[in-house]
Amino acid sequence: MISAGRQETFMAVILITGGARSGKSRRAETRTQAFPGRPVYIATAEALDAEMEDRIAKHRARRGADWIEREVPLDLVQALVETEGGGARLVDCMTLWLSNLLHSERDWSREVTHLAEVLPRLRSPVIMVTNEVGLGIVPDNALARAYRDAAGIMNQTFAGVADEVEFVVAGLPMKLK
Amino acid sequence: MISAGRQETFMAVILITGGARSGKSRRAETRTQAFPGRPVYIATAEALDAEMEDRIAKHRARRGADWIEREVPLDLVQALVETEGGGARLVDCMTLWLSNLLHSERDWSREVTHLAEVLPRLRSPVIMVTNEVGLGIVPDNALARAYRDAAGIMNQTFAGVADEVEFVVAGLPMKLK
Amino acid sequence: MISAGRQETFMAVILITGGARSGKSRRAETRTQAFPGRPVYIATAEALDAEMEDRIAKHRARRGADWIEREVPLDLVQALVETEGGGARLVDCMTLWLSNLLHSERDWSREVTHLAEVLPRLRSPVIMVTNEVGLGIVPDNALARAYRDAAGIMNQTFAGVADEVEFVVAGLPMKLK
Repeated sequence: MISAGRQETFMAVILITGGARSGKSRRAETRTQAFPGRPVYIATAEALDAEMEDRIAKHRARRGADWIEREVPLDLVQALVETEGGGARLVDCMTLWLSNLLHSERDWSREVTHLAEVLPRLRSPVIMVTNEVGLGIVPDNALARAYRDAAGIMNQTFAGVADEVEFVVAGLPMKLK
Repeated sequence: MISAGRQETFMAVILITGGARSGKSRRAETRTQAFPGRPVYIATAEALDAEMEDRIAKHRARRGADWIEREVPLDLVQALVETEGGGARLVDCMTLWLSNLLHSERDWSREVTHLAEVLPRLRSPVIMVTNEVGLGIVPDNALARAYRDAAGIMNQTFAGVADEVEFVVAGLPMKLK
Repeated sequence: MISAGRQETFMAVILITGGARSGKSRRAETRTQAFPGRPVYIATAEALDAEMEDRIAKHRARRGADWIEREVPLDLVQALVETEGGGARLVDCMTLWLSNLLHSERDWSREVTHLAEVLPRLRSPVIMVTNEVGLGIVPDNALARAYRDAAGIMNQTFAGVADEVEFVVAGLPMKLK
């Protein structure tokens, strides 16, 4: 659909949210490839264990060879600035980036705010994948509660500056914005 | 928007549901303040520990000084009847009220049914905030499962009598009813 | 509504997803009964403990006596083929079927793929109930994570072949497809 494709080039920042294994990443890949230029895949995951390695390998096999790949566990603003002027950037995913920030004892709130300020000023599109983690029972331990709160605040912040927000359930997107 | 404001005065009962830190409370505040009169904030939370105290203080700071505040951990029907005739009442939140009922060993099912019968008969608007807690993995312990079931039944009950229901994800409302 | 009823007879496969106690089953019952013929209830649950027995009894009491009932913990394809030519079949629920497959050490992925291939070729309607389990905090144990992943993949697969998909929150359906 040429007209849809054209329209999408005016949408600079897209947030795709949803649960685990909801089809978020696949949806984000489709949205990213609809933009002109060679797509850039920015992985916030590091292949630290076998489970994660396996998941990364499967995602890579599905995407195919035309993607430019970068592993960026922490410095997203820098990576987005460095990849300006080319195709759309897919960042997968923001909740893992948040985990990385917390593990590195960085000021997550400041980093989220900073990224949210930078996003609307970028020229090339950014498609961000994130997780909804707040729709289960209140976790027992305080750390999980704090993470859940941080993720919720982060998602609200990025949804606030995004041009489009989609909530994916069972592989099907609902338009939130 | 004057016309929207007018239209809302005919919507007496509004249920705002969503996950933790999804922006439910903020959305509910906006909806409450759209009604004429001085808004009433009915908190079901009691400041029992530092975490809760901190959360209550943040919510209060955001709302500002024009709200009438009440702490009502259990007797919501009474509080709603007593505050009739003024501005809209925001009850934040129903899942915490349910917890309070369970901890007090009250008959939660009877209290939910009673409140659901009273709600449509009230004159001043009521905006209720609640949590979706049933979209994660089945909890290990029977108490958490029972709470999750009760919350689901309660939410269905209030959604059934509400004039409007919104589901908030990442700060963005989806209209359910 | 006669016209809506007629339209629904062309919708052969309907997936109803949602959280625990969200009103999925009730919604699925309504959709099933809208089709002509005597409705068939295919329960994947077995009454293994008192909690489950109680839940099954409550569902049965709500549905009433006009339903044909079958307990099918594993062999759904066979049951669907055997009940062809009559009324619509309600399968409640797919996530429990998935649990049964895992406990029986069957190849769940193969069974899901097989059922997804069979579904579009059936003549009588099938209404499937499933659970969203991936919207909470990442579970601590690997088994729960594996189950959550499998459920997500299964839901995407069935949503992909379904003619209609609804996401139920607080008893209210949102149309996903």
